[in-house]
Amino acid sequence: MGNRINLFIDLYELTMMQSYFFEGENRNAVFDFHIRFRENVPRRFYVFCGLEYLIEAIENISFSDEDIEYLKSLGLFKKEFLDYLRGFKFTGDIYSVDEGRIIFPNEPVVEVSAPLPEAQLVETLVINLIQFPILSATKAARCFCVSDGKILVDFGARRAHSTQSAEIAARSSYITGFSGTSLLSVGEKYSIPVFGTMAHSFVMIHDDEKEAFRRFAKLYKKTVLLIDTYDIEVGTKNAIEVIKELGKEGVKITALRIDSGDLIDEVKKMRKILDENNMHDVSIFISGGINEYKIQEILKNTEGVGGFGVGTELTVSADQPYLDCAYKLVEYDGKPKMKLSEGKHNLPGRKKVIRIYKNGKMFKDIVALQDEDVDITEYDSGSSENLLKKVFSNGKISEEYKIIKDNKPKYIQSCREMFLRDFEKLPEKLKDLSPPTKDEVYNVEISPKIRKIIQDFEKKFHDQKQNSNIQKKSVQ
Amino acid sequence: MGNRINLFIDLYELTMMQSYFFEGENRNAVFDFHIRFRENVPRRFYVFCGLEYLIEAIENISFSDEDIEYLKSLGLFKKEFLDYLRGFKFTGDIYSVDEGRIIFPNEPVVEVSAPLPEAQLVETLVINLIQFPILSATKAARCFCVSDGKILVDFGARRAHSTQSAEIAARSSYITGFSGTSLLSVGEKYSIPVFGTMAHSFVMIHDDEKEAFRRFAKLYKKTVLLIDTYDIEVGTKNAIEVIKELGKEGVKITALRIDSGDLIDEVKKMRKILDENNMHDVSIFISGGINEYKIQEILKNTEGVGGFGVGTELTVSADQPYLDCAYKLVEYDGKPKMKLSEGKHNLPGRKKVIRIYKNGKMFKDIVALQDEDVDITEYDSGSSENLLKKVFSNGKISEEYKIIKDNKPKYIQSCREMFLRDFEKLPEKLKDLSPPTKDEVYNVEISPKIRKIIQDFEKKFHDQKQNSNIQKKSVQ
Repeated sequence: MGNRINLFIDLYELTMMQSYFFEGENRNAVFDFHIRFRENVPRRFYVFCGLEYLIEAIENISFSDEDIEYLKSLGLFKKEFLDYLRGFKFTGDIYSVDEGRIIFPNEPVVEVSAPLPEAQLVETLVINLIQFPILSATKAARCFCVSDGKILVDFGARRAHSTQSAEIAARSSYITGFSGTSLLSVGEKYSIPVFGTMAHSFVMIHDDEKEAFRRFAKLYKKTVLLIDTYDIEVGTKNAIEVIKELGKEGVKITALRIDSGDLIDEVKKMRKILDENNMHDVSIFISGGINEYKIQEILKNTEGVGGFGVGTELTVSADQPYLDCAYKLVEYDGKPKMKLSEGKHNLPGRKKVIRIYKNGKMFKDIVALQDEDVDITEYDSGSSENLLKKVFSNGKISEEYKIIKDNKPKYIQSCREMFLRDFEKLPEKLKDLSPPTKDEVYNVEISPKIRKIIQDFEKKFHDQKQNSNIQKKSVQ
Repeated sequence: MGNRINLFIDLYELTMMQSYFFEGENRNAVFDFHIRFRENVPRRFYVFCGLEYLIEAIENISFSDEDIEYLKSLGLFKKEFLDYLRGFKFTGDIYSVDEGRIIFPNEPVVEVSAPLPEAQLVETLVINLIQFPILSATKAARCFCVSDGKILVDFGARRAHSTQSAEIAARSSYITGFSGTSLLSVGEKYSIPVFGTMAHSFVMIHDDEKEAFRRFAKLYKKTVLLIDTYDIEVGTKNAIEVIKELGKEGVKITALRIDSGDLIDEVKKMRKILDENNMHDVSIFISGGINEYKIQEILKNTEGVGGFGVGTELTVSADQPYLDCAYKLVEYDGKPKMKLSEGKHNLPGRKKVIRIYKNGKMFKDIVALQDEDVDITEYDSGSSENLLKKVFSNGKISEEYKIIKDNKPKYIQSCREMFLRDFEKLPEKLKDLSPPTKDEVYNVEISPKIRKIIQDFEKKFHDQKQNSNIQKKSVQ
């Protein structure tokens, strides 16, 4: 992704930056990225993902001669500013939650602390590189919640919003417990398992379905057959004949795949036919419009299903295709900042996120100022931690995160383990698929000091507004 | 995108391909890409987009040594097949609708005609590279439908599913009538206008909103101010004071931007305050959760709005985040092919799409076999055309499409003109935002010869199934 970040910038970031440049406004600013809290959010938890992309991008931010020429051509930027951009390097600090961790709305999960122009420049980049990884990881994790140990495979590449987003979703879903993906580029990059069988066209090319099955099975020895090109019942029977015929030759059909029709009904029929033929060990692999709700329903109503290919709905996070999230200024030059416009509050100040466990399960998170003491005495000692870790110091990547560049396969396994550990600690009620009621929302507590800052802001602003109205009236 | 297509392949494409390779199944196959027809589709028309990506990808398909090593490591592929992949080049023909054209479900918009292994290999790539450009172009075109000549700007980069998808949506929306984008990388690549103002953080950095406005306006002379960081009414008044103060210095504020709150209410209030101050020429620019429905509602209920920034909902096509589309085998070795499984019919045979006009408006499209005579005598002569054009011949790009690589700015303008011309010819009832009733769906007619082939298939299959059932019974 490194080569594509040049000018992945919204124009306003540069117009503001130039203003800061000439004003000398280059003191330290802190921005945080968080999921906004909303009533009626369709998710009980989210999974943090995307740090790899962010790290690679931050290290590669620079302006080429062509970029500078282009910016010059816009007629908005002065020579001194363009010269400054020519030598631009990110020199700030970045704190982040680790990939694979379970997170909740209202808590900062990435915090950028840098000279104002730098922190402002990366706004669009940070949101873009983090948002969709979280969305796709969360969608996949929901499938994992209800999969009951069955195999889940990402089949989404074709319907993703770009080749990049396909790769993001494949990666995210592996982190959150999928067994692998059909997409070879991701299998190659991360050394994760790849899966695949045949398409309907393969059956259609052959004069006869059985002949298609025979040829494929003979070539691959251990494989899966797609039985719904023409008719599911006939296809199942054809597959059974081929299994019987080729069993002697050491060919092993592990599953029959179905990709259309009324899935529950058809699976029951297929299972019956298979069992009647004593093929209890041939499982059924299901694809076609699968999402977490269908997985749950199918597993509840059928037996002998071995796994699911989850495609489109995962790869676009169909029921929540965007995240209500923000990258907001929270501190400038050591002073907390907040925006007050309607419905879009953010938490001021430089923060930490303390997660508290009780009886081995997540109990609550506390968002507090970075230097604020948090009272956790009422819980078991040692069972709390700060989720935000330092990833960049003065523009340099921290030692422990170099693995992201040096050993992607090992890194991705560590993310997956992180998710599986967190998932163990997730309270059962948060694994439910339905939107949470008010009482079921995980408790993300705002610390006393932050609450005090917000109150002061609101009061100050209220007073200002009253003054302005009084002024206005006296003028009229 | 060229450098990212290596192994952007679903594993099954290669397992099928290897089977074809050893079976010698390399006769000519035709696959077509089409939007599936469904009842209750939320769109009355679609806009074709993405050909640029497809052309660049097809020309760049190849397997590097690392790719071959990776495939070898999977233990699925034999040496002879891997050697064949090592020298792989696409040698087929591709037909496509031109970018910017209005299209409808059920008609092929891309047709790949190539030796079977090649046509199969590009399945995932074709769908991925075409689907989201169509989705985003269509969503943007719907905004254009109701924009009444106002300025529309793409603001979506941050919420797109990847940096690539942000660029795709920015490009698509410019083709379908947007004035430009906030995303600099796309402005640079296609020489299209870029737009941008300031963020809330800019106001928050300054001790005082008026001072923030003053500094920004002095630097840019002709610009837009964001007035909702704290309070919309106060912000509007602060902006007016700055406009009055700096007007003498030649500073021109063209618009005030609002990004939150009850937009219709707030716009009315802002307009009133502006008009009371004789600032009729300062327009209002609206962003924040905008989609086609909100544009329509706001323009219906307010006056003096100059334009809209359309972000998230455009860049993820929020109400239709994926397209029900397919890339299906329709002919092999000169013989028509079709899949019969439930609810997923496709049109067999190599086809053309004839569009017929009546009184200068699109009247109906006829999908016919490529060599079939279509009777259009009842319509004005000369007012029909075949939408599918030859883009690749024997793996070589056609002369008229080389502009896609050689002159992107000129090409993108031609796509935009194509859309605007087609939009003129689109019947008014199809510009309505609501889902079409059965009678309102644009008429895409299936030719007599295609209907005959389908009937023959269904009959043949029905007979086979009956035979199989009879056979089954006689066995029991």
